[in-house]
Amino acid sequence: MNVDGHHYRTVWTVDDDRIRIIDQRLLPHQFVLEDLRTVDDVARAIADMHVRGAGLIGATAGYGMWLAAIEAANAPDFDPQLNRFAAQLKATRPTAVNLAWAVDRVLAAIAEPGSSGEKIAAARRVADVIADEDADFCRRIGVHGLPLLRAIHEKKGGPVNVLTHCNAGWLAFVDHGSATAPIYAAHEAGIPVHVWVDETRPRCQGSKLTAWELGRHGVPHTLVADNTGGHLMQHGLVDLVIVGTDRTTRTGDVANKIGTYLKALAAKDNGVPFYVALPSSTFDWTMKDGLREIPVEERGGNEVKYADGWHEGHHIAVLLAPENTPAANYGFDITPARLVTGLITERGVCAATGSAILDLFPEHRE
Amino acid sequence: MNVDGHHYRTVWTVDDDRIRIIDQRLLPHQFVLEDLRTVDDVARAIADMHVRGAGLIGATAGYGMWLAAIEAANAPDFDPQLNRFAAQLKATRPTAVNLAWAVDRVLAAIAEPGSSGEKIAAARRVADVIADEDADFCRRIGVHGLPLLRAIHEKKGGPVNVLTHCNAGWLAFVDHGSATAPIYAAHEAGIPVHVWVDETRPRCQGSKLTAWELGRHGVPHTLVADNTGGHLMQHGLVDLVIVGTDRTTRTGDVANKIGTYLKALAAKDNGVPFYVALPSSTFDWTMKDGLREIPVEERGGNEVKYADGWHEGHHIAVLLAPENTPAANYGFDITPARLVTGLITERGVCAATGSAILDLFPEHRE
Repeated sequence: MNVDGHHYRTVWTVDDDRIRIIDQRLLPHQFVLEDLRTVDDVARAIADMHVRGAGLIGATAGYGMWLAAIEAANAPDFDPQLNRFAAQLKATRPTAVNLAWAVDRVLAAIAEPGSSGEKIAAARRVADVIADEDADFCRRIGVHGLPLLRAIHEKKGGPVNVLTHCNAGWLAFVDHGSATAPIYAAHEAGIPVHVWVDETRPRCQGSKLTAWELGRHGVPHTLVADNTGGHLMQHGLVDLVIVGTDRTTRTGDVANKIGTYLKALAAKDNGVPFYVALPSSTFDWTMKDGLREIPVEERGGNEVKYADGWHEGHHIAVLLAPENTPAANYGFDITPARLVTGLITERGVCAATGSAILDLFPEHRE
Repeated sequence: MNVDGHHYRTVWTVDDDRIRIIDQRLLPHQFVLEDLRTVDDVARAIADMHVRGAGLIGATAGYGMWLAAIEAANAPDFDPQLNRFAAQLKATRPTAVNLAWAVDRVLAAIAEPGSSGEKIAAARRVADVIADEDADFCRRIGVHGLPLLRAIHEKKGGPVNVLTHCNAGWLAFVDHGSATAPIYAAHEAGIPVHVWVDETRPRCQGSKLTAWELGRHGVPHTLVADNTGGHLMQHGLVDLVIVGTDRTTRTGDVANKIGTYLKALAAKDNGVPFYVALPSSTFDWTMKDGLREIPVEERGGNEVKYADGWHEGHHIAVLLAPENTPAANYGFDITPARLVTGLITERGVCAATGSAILDLFPEHRE
């Protein structure tokens, strides 16, 4: 999407020897592009969260395997070296399913017979396909989600008020985002849209990433504390909720950033449609009961006790609580399918039920 | 309650010429007692939120009128000067109902005939009564709430897990608090209790005040982001929710810190009892429909865009969002009576219905 009028993806190649990313750790206070020239660079960028988000991690890892092929061509042992690089990249964020999937996909292309030059070219081709597919799936989520916003606009006349939680924006993918794709599509189509952005404590991906990307692209939005969504819905200030997801069961239970479930409850209580946008790679076809089966990551309590922000030209962390206060930090929660109005996927919109999901994705029938 | 083994109230008199408070702006990082010697001192302490919370504002204003009588006795015109002081105090937080009520109550006592010495003594006596009543009403909320926690403990055996939002603790009153009174009573009675403390963005009264007072008194607790309560309830980690309230209608609709409604929805969805603790002064007997009638204060957006905390020995504010991001900041929300299991008052526990409330407070029958 656009940053002050210039189109960007979150990762792309430069010349024949490096890839370029936005160092997302520094957003929203500094917009810094970073060049990654080696597998070590890529591994560090993923592990230290210069890039984050399922789609973007996969695409970056794909390009990382292209750099791996270039580096391995200069090593005495091409294949063993390549496998070491693949293992190194996979180890950076072990729970990110797109990561291993992208690494293996490029690895398979390189395994085809050919010169090292041909293998390098093949790696780059497949990495490009992975990135393009990610962007295209998100774009199609926008195409399928757009009519939902258009219908609301035609019915009420004024701007469509969308509430979102965390960052399921283009910064989490290669372009467009998942939850944001219908929003960007509506904005592009001239439908007035305004986004309520949950700040999303403790890491504030809403304040730091979603507010930034919407602002830079020119989409009207208002930042609110996570506590606010219920009040907004009680007063008719939200027409539609759209969130992303980290994992969705084949029955439509949705794991997403902690706090999503509370907004789904408020949407239900106030008759506000609650949609989840996802590329189908986010379905976990092995799971049927989100609450029982999806593991919830626990992170360090210091993320709750501190807030990271910008002060006089520096990133610093301030302590919000007594120093010795115990704190718990659950990374996400499960929104049961009964609270989800629909799923917006690259193939269309469906109800959050096992049968409706399989109607769109029949290849996953058991 | 106790601060590291020493018993404190939030406001008290010292010698015959001043009152002492805890400067709550500095909590939890600095515990500083402040002496107020003049009406100007008291007005500034209330306006600048050295003291806050309905009960504490009322008690402090009551003592402020005692200082006003002392100062007026040295002025050429006792009565006009006293009225000017009363107006000055009332103007500090115009929406705090306890403030004007306390000022007028002391003013009435001073109006009785007598020497200036007798008037000063009368003012102090009434100010003491106001503070003692506040502490006693909160203590009785604890007495009536205790059996709820005892019953849970006897049924499940282990510690009783209570979730609370914002600070309805002793720091907001003279002693005991409202939501915390049953917790302190259970702790005192030897019933093991553990409190989940919502941080309560944007002002973080949970992190800064509730975590501090529970920790100093020795009550086990864990700080969580506001997004977390739904997940905790889904997993059986909350036995009971207890919150305070800024205003409750005669029908049982509850205005409280923004985000309370979301926790009430989660409690309902998971079969967790949701109680509201309040001294009866918090009932607004003129209102029947909380959502339509209770005005919701909007505060500055910078509270959402920034976080105030402690860094290298200083209080500083860090920017969390892009500098020009619009932000909205609603101060509280309305929890409809249908989501409230019961009200814990100084006269006992009742259902959140008009008739049950009037059974406890028959003097307010229309």
